Amino acid sequence: MMFKKRFSDPGTAPATLLPLGPGEASKPVFRIIEYCEKEIIESRFENFAELPQFSDDGKVRWIDMCGLGDVEALKLLGERFELHPLALEDVLHLGQRPKFESYDTHLFIVAQMLYRDKEGNFTGEQLSMFLQRNLLITIQEDLEEDVFDPVRKRLTSGRGLIRKSGSDYLAYALLDAIVDHCFPVLEKFGEAFEEMETQVLDNPGSNCVRELHNHRRNLMQLRRFVWPERDVISALLHDESGLISAQTKVFLRDCYDHSVQIMDLVESYRDVAAGLLELYLSSVSLRTNEIMRVLTVISSIFIPLTFIAGVYGMNFSQESTPSPANPLNMPELHWAWGYPACLLLMASITIGQLVLFKRRKWL
Amino acid sequence: MMFKKRFSDPGTAPATLLPLGPGEASKPVFRIIEYCEKEIIESRFENFAELPQFSDDGKVRWIDMCGLGDVEALKLLGERFELHPLALEDVLHLGQRPKFESYDTHLFIVAQMLYRDKEGNFTGEQLSMFLQRNLLITIQEDLEEDVFDPVRKRLTSGRGLIRKSGSDYLAYALLDAIVDHCFPVLEKFGEAFEEMETQVLDNPGSNCVRELHNHRRNLMQLRRFVWPERDVISALLHDESGLISAQTKVFLRDCYDHSVQIMDLVESYRDVAAGLLELYLSSVSLRTNEIMRVLTVISSIFIPLTFIAGVYGMNFSQESTPSPANPLNMPELHWAWGYPACLLLMASITIGQLVLFKRRKWL
Amino acid sequence: MMFKKRFSDPGTAPATLLPLGPGEASKPVFRIIEYCEKEIIESRFENFAELPQFSDDGKVRWIDMCGLGDVEALKLLGERFELHPLALEDVLHLGQRPKFESYDTHLFIVAQMLYRDKEGNFTGEQLSMFLQRNLLITIQEDLEEDVFDPVRKRLTSGRGLIRKSGSDYLAYALLDAIVDHCFPVLEKFGEAFEEMETQVLDNPGSNCVRELHNHRRNLMQLRRFVWPERDVISALLHDESGLISAQTKVFLRDCYDHSVQIMDLVESYRDVAAGLLELYLSSVSLRTNEIMRVLTVISSIFIPLTFIAGVYGMNFSQESTPSPANPLNMPELHWAWGYPACLLLMASITIGQLVLFKRRKWL
Amino acid sequence: MMFKKRFSDPGTAPATLLPLGPGEASKPVFRIIEYCEKEIIESRFENFAELPQFSDDGKVRWIDMCGLGDVEALKLLGERFELHPLALEDVLHLGQRPKFESYDTHLFIVAQMLYRDKEGNFTGEQLSMFLQRNLLITIQEDLEEDVFDPVRKRLTSGRGLIRKSGSDYLAYALLDAIVDHCFPVLEKFGEAFEEMETQVLDNPGSNCVRELHNHRRNLMQLRRFVWPERDVISALLHDESGLISAQTKVFLRDCYDHSVQIMDLVESYRDVAAGLLELYLSSVSLRTNEIMRVLTVISSIFIPLTFIAGVYGMNFSQESTPSPANPLNMPELHWAWGYPACLLLMASITIGQLVLFKRRKWL
Amino acid sequence: MMFKKRFSDPGTAPATLLPLGPGEASKPVFRIIEYCEKEIIESRFENFAELPQFSDDGKVRWIDMCGLGDVEALKLLGERFELHPLALEDVLHLGQRPKFESYDTHLFIVAQMLYRDKEGNFTGEQLSMFLQRNLLITIQEDLEEDVFDPVRKRLTSGRGLIRKSGSDYLAYALLDAIVDHCFPVLEKFGEAFEEMETQVLDNPGSNCVRELHNHRRNLMQLRRFVWPERDVISALLHDESGLISAQTKVFLRDCYDHSVQIMDLVESYRDVAAGLLELYLSSVSLRTNEIMRVLTVISSIFIPLTFIAGVYGMNFSQESTPSPANPLNMPELHWAWGYPACLLLMASITIGQLVLFKRRKWL
Repeated sequence: MMFKKRFSDPGTAPATLLPLGPGEASKPVFRIIEYCEKEIIESRFENFAELPQFSDDGKVRWIDMCGLGDVEALKLLGERFELHPLALEDVLHLGQRPKFESYDTHLFIVAQMLYRDKEGNFTGEQLSMFLQRNLLITIQEDLEEDVFDPVRKRLTSGRGLIRKSGSDYLAYALLDAIVDHCFPVLEKFGEAFEEMETQVLDNPGSNCVRELHNHRRNLMQLRRFVWPERDVISALLHDESGLISAQTKVFLRDCYDHSVQIMDLVESYRDVAAGLLELYLSSVSLRTNEIMRVLTVISSIFIPLTFIAGVYGMNFSQESTPSPANPLNMPELHWAWGYPACLLLMASITIGQLVLFKRRKWL
Repeated sequence: MMFKKRFSDPGTAPATLLPLGPGEASKPVFRIIEYCEKEIIESRFENFAELPQFSDDGKVRWIDMCGLGDVEALKLLGERFELHPLALEDVLHLGQRPKFESYDTHLFIVAQMLYRDKEGNFTGEQLSMFLQRNLLITIQEDLEEDVFDPVRKRLTSGRGLIRKSGSDYLAYALLDAIVDHCFPVLEKFGEAFEEMETQVLDNPGSNCVRELHNHRRNLMQLRRFVWPERDVISALLHDESGLISAQTKVFLRDCYDHSVQIMDLVESYRDVAAGLLELYLSSVSLRTNEIMRVLTVISSIFIPLTFIAGVYGMNFSQESTPSPANPLNMPELHWAWGYPACLLLMASITIGQLVLFKRRKWL
Repeated sequence: MMFKKRFSDPGTAPATLLPLGPGEASKPVFRIIEYCEKEIIESRFENFAELPQFSDDGKVRWIDMCGLGDVEALKLLGERFELHPLALEDVLHLGQRPKFESYDTHLFIVAQMLYRDKEGNFTGEQLSMFLQRNLLITIQEDLEEDVFDPVRKRLTSGRGLIRKSGSDYLAYALLDAIVDHCFPVLEKFGEAFEEMETQVLDNPGSNCVRELHNHRRNLMQLRRFVWPERDVISALLHDESGLISAQTKVFLRDCYDHSVQIMDLVESYRDVAAGLLELYLSSVSLRTNEIMRVLTVISSIFIPLTFIAGVYGMNFSQESTPSPANPLNMPELHWAWGYPACLLLMASITIGQLVLFKRRKWL
Repeated sequence: MMFKKRFSDPGTAPATLLPLGPGEASKPVFRIIEYCEKEIIESRFENFAELPQFSDDGKVRWIDMCGLGDVEALKLLGERFELHPLALEDVLHLGQRPKFESYDTHLFIVAQMLYRDKEGNFTGEQLSMFLQRNLLITIQEDLEEDVFDPVRKRLTSGRGLIRKSGSDYLAYALLDAIVDHCFPVLEKFGEAFEEMETQVLDNPGSNCVRELHNHRRNLMQLRRFVWPERDVISALLHDESGLISAQTKVFLRDCYDHSVQIMDLVESYRDVAAGLLELYLSSVSLRTNEIMRVLTVISSIFIPLTFIAGVYGMNFSQESTPSPANPLNMPELHWAWGYPACLLLMASITIGQLVLFKRRKWL
Repeated sequence: MMFKKRFSDPGTAPATLLPLGPGEASKPVFRIIEYCEKEIIESRFENFAELPQFSDDGKVRWIDMCGLGDVEALKLLGERFELHPLALEDVLHLGQRPKFESYDTHLFIVAQMLYRDKEGNFTGEQLSMFLQRNLLITIQEDLEEDVFDPVRKRLTSGRGLIRKSGSDYLAYALLDAIVDHCFPVLEKFGEAFEEMETQVLDNPGSNCVRELHNHRRNLMQLRRFVWPERDVISALLHDESGLISAQTKVFLRDCYDHSVQIMDLVESYRDVAAGLLELYLSSVSLRTNEIMRVLTVISSIFIPLTFIAGVYGMNFSQESTPSPANPLNMPELHWAWGYPACLLLMASITIGQLVLFKRRKWL
């Protein structure tokens, strides 16, 4: 569906956790990474009940819940970590614009990871993040794919700042991965438009329109998810809850800058797409014009000639059985120079028209 | 009528309550729900005079007046609850943009409930709300239909916060129902546009334009009602009259977010509609181009051939009764290889043109 | 003239009162209404000199000068009531955008009353207002027509607040009458566009473009006068000269709201007009396409058939006087099944083409 | 050149006074007007060295330097009156947007006087103003023409405030003359567009496009110079250097209002021009449609008829020398009612098509 | 590639210095200019290790690193001068929008120098600047070309303020050179558009579209780099780090003004380009219209005539072997005045049509 956006039935009580339909959601898996500068432990649970109690040992914990198929687990999660019910409801409203909300006990961020499906169209996978001190809870639509593998590698390898910093830096790293994931996607657009440009000028066919329309729709989709992302990062930059450290804000500034660069590219590509459509339309209109010209020239020359031939193909007869001859009936046909004169007339009409068309620049 | 908007005659005194024309308005019915956490009482009156006096017992009261046919009752209502005359006048100006006005004794909100009529077009039913401490007065155009049944069910069942909260929460719940009511409506647009996209590309007919135009007008209507709704909720969020509690503001923030998501969808669908029109126009223009090409090719090939056939259909005669023969008159007709040579000439012209058209990519 | 706007010669001293050309302005008439809650006196003078001295008796006075033909009277008026010379100059610059200027001794407001002339086009009549305590001076272009009759009736009847309030309320009442006067005008647009919509889809002719263009120009004109009106009222709302009472500001807020509703309608109608033009263009383009299709189909079918008929109309002869027969010359003509075969060939070409066109959805 | 804009070579030191090329600039002439309320003295010098020393006698002096051909004189002028070198450099960068810059010792204003050249196109003559207490230095491109004659007359006659006020009022008077000079220019556009409207609807030819394009370019040029003018006056209004008196600011407010009115007209005319282009395009498209219709109707009717005539012009023969007759070959030709039946067939086809076209509203 | 923009793989740690691919980057060369008011020393190194230690002698140093092929050298540079790692990462992200970032120890500026390649398209060479007290580090993509030669000359010659000022003035001088470099580039656009205008009106061919599209893309590119440049300079103007002196800010204000003038020109040229496309489209549409007209006129006249000729070319026979004569079969052919009457009919049809077309203004 175009712009899929899940919503509760109008009028249902706010903060109602609406289970997704069967087939829409998969059973959740909990991936937990606990790390401090010295060590890192990864674990994986299939039931929320199995989740261990966390001691307040200064370790940072990342709970990554993949799959939205178990509303009960979500409720328990919310209760245990004091997540706001309205935020939990938003977790289930898939297809949302990215948003940032500051609650008393945590910050809540919704972002969209962009993937291309097999037909090259974009779909967004919604990522919900709950940020608390030393704890980051992320909730993804399913287990299948995400853009965080490089972040996990950095966590495991222990290089860089990531293991030395708190959960706010982890949240930044995930957002940064999501934002930077748009660059290769946009590069694809660049290539596609380059190619299309040549095609539009040389051979503007109906597949051009179709393809261009598709690209524009994808850019529109992309834009819907990228524009608010910038606002989310900006809101994080100016957050005063104290959960985001000054050091992380320097990096978020960098991430903000990237999101601006992406928006800039998206807008540029939208301009390019609009330009290509105009180019296409003028190519087609020029081509129609050229075809018309040829048709006009050929028709204009031959239609009068055919008429003349038609005239001398008429069967008006000079012979008349009961009465005297009809000498007025087509005497040209019996004139010795009739045929050459006729051909000469035709030739002169042709030459006259060619000269005229040449002057009007139709040839 | 397009954009129905009722107005008083220019120059009438402000706060004049103008009765609606006969047939335009139905006799009002008063539905009253009184509730506190423990109990809930529903009652229904057909005359304003029957309305009981309310004691100040901490119960929340929702007076739902359905029908605008009795201007006197409206006046009495205004006097009893100290509603501002200008606000009462606005109640009768149907078809207004949603608005929020803060008066000394109450807050005044105008919203539009959107329905689809049988032909799929939108009409708005105006809802006026007066919010006082423990009292919410709503005024609808008629009794027939509204979007509040789920809210009434939540009131009766007593689940959720609604019975534990004041009249501000009730006002929020109604606004939320109105806003969320737009989501399924917008989903319909999504489906319609999906379908239309295929049709526009494959078979762009005149019904496409008609339908697309209709959708665009409906989106325009929708937008007129949704854009100011956001401002209304925003004004409620920043209201300083003390009538809106902090707790309700958290929920209003959620509702505000929904109204932003809806506006975002409306704008996206407007973009899609504009894109579809462009797609349609380029489809038609391409199709004209293609048809022209076929016509040109066929005409360009056969018009010269027909001319040649015409020439040899002329009746110039070599016989000449009184004088010697006219050997210059169409000797080809009497040449033994005349006909085959003529056919050969025709074939070679055809082949020459086909090659030319192939090169110009017209075939 | 399009956008009539009177201006002084560039470089003339500011505050020069430039007399209007002969025929442009009519001799002024002064209509004076003096009222307090208890009584109301109307009088009418043709000469400024006849105007009585006003005692400071708490009565509100409305001096309505109709006609700009006497620059001297205007000067005297300005001197007597201490009106600013730059404001007086603006009174004579007809066709201005509405504006608000706060001078030391008075507030100065320019508004435009909109009328339709016989051809349905809009013209604005400029109204200049000088607001002082207990005094309102209005200056109109001529005596003929204004939109203030309902206000005068309210004054005479003494109902409502108008007789109990000061000159600021009177100014509000006049502005309100001007603003509300736009609603019926806009309703006309709605009706016209409704009608045009059907016409554009069913029978897009050249009068459509003409009419649509006219409507768009009128909307442009309307917008030029309505947009700044809102700013004028907003400036009045925030005026701190003390001339506007708090009570009147509540009413001005209502009037401001009306001006916003009008602007909203104007913008909506501009969108509708733009949509209609697009609709018209696509209707025409679709119609061209359809006509082309019919032409192409008929031509494509008959041009080849005509060619074949032309071939067998050629006069290549098998008889040859001096030499043996030319059996190669059109033997088909002498074949017993020649004609039926020829007709069969024609029929099969026709059927082949029909099948092809059917497949391409050209039929 | 389109948008002429002079600039220094990139990288040259700032504040470099670049002499204009030969033929580009004329030798400067200094026109000096010294005035106080009682007297006025005009003088004229051709060499900067001849300029007398000015005593601080309370007189206002206006030094009007016409011609930019002598960079040395400009340098000397700058040194003597302490003009900022960056401002002096801007004096030579012709074709600039109007700007305002506040330096320590003076205010610096760049404005553009608009003229129409012989072909009706706009060119701007740059005017640089340096405002000091009791001194106004203006620098024009050449001596030929300016828009200040009415100001000079007001100075000489001594009427109005100009002789009683300081150099700030003089600067205002010049700016006002420049701004008001746009009104008659814009009126010309109004007339041209009125005329063009009729032409576009009745007879849309290629000269329309050419002319319309020209007008649009001129409006673009005008806009480039008028938009920033408003900002300049606004900056003067809010200047806090103390060089602009409160009294002058009242007049500048009036001038600001004029510049807003002009911008409003420019934007309106741009809308009109855009509307005219759309009108033109739809006129042409409608006309193409109409021509197509006629062609289609004529072709569709006669092409089938010609085909039938062609069939009965074929020479299939029933006589066959060596063999028996070929009775299948065109027996219609020998049928007694052949010709009338054929004509009847043709007539019925024609009528059938006419009915069909009538129904499709093509006739 | 369209909009080349280098980026790290999504998810890589921030501040990772990613080496450019082989062939993409050249080995760096360090050009060092040390100067004070009295002396200036230029030196050149190919290895970072060779760079001497700088004493804090009040001299200003400009380290110009040309070439990005050695990531190690960049790292060492960053360590030695305490450049922020995120800034260093940005140095390698080529194709960025200009940006300004204020770090603790230095200001960081990214700008784009615009060049035209052989085909006339723009490419930007990224310039990164690190500004510290008495030190300016600039990093260019390669050694080949830059726009700073006039600045180097001013440094060597010692004229102007440049040798007397600090590193902030040098940074200004470089930015100014970059900004002013756009003026001649834009002048080229002006010339190209002037030329194209004539061509579009006289002979709108397909190369027009191609060229226009190219220009528009180039303007889009230019705009992407020029718009943020203004923001960069504005941020420098309002920088509060103390690294920019008040004197330099006066010059930056001038540079800011230039960047505004350039943006103004870019926007104007974009308008011109859009206008040219519209002009082109209406030229083509008018031309199609004209061609259609000629075709229609010729076809409409000759098609009926040819039909008449065809009718009298039919072979309906009055002779009938076995039966009596068929006098109904084409008696006109045997009528003595048949042929002249037929020609007369044809002539009258022609004249009738010509009159009709003349009236419809098709001739």
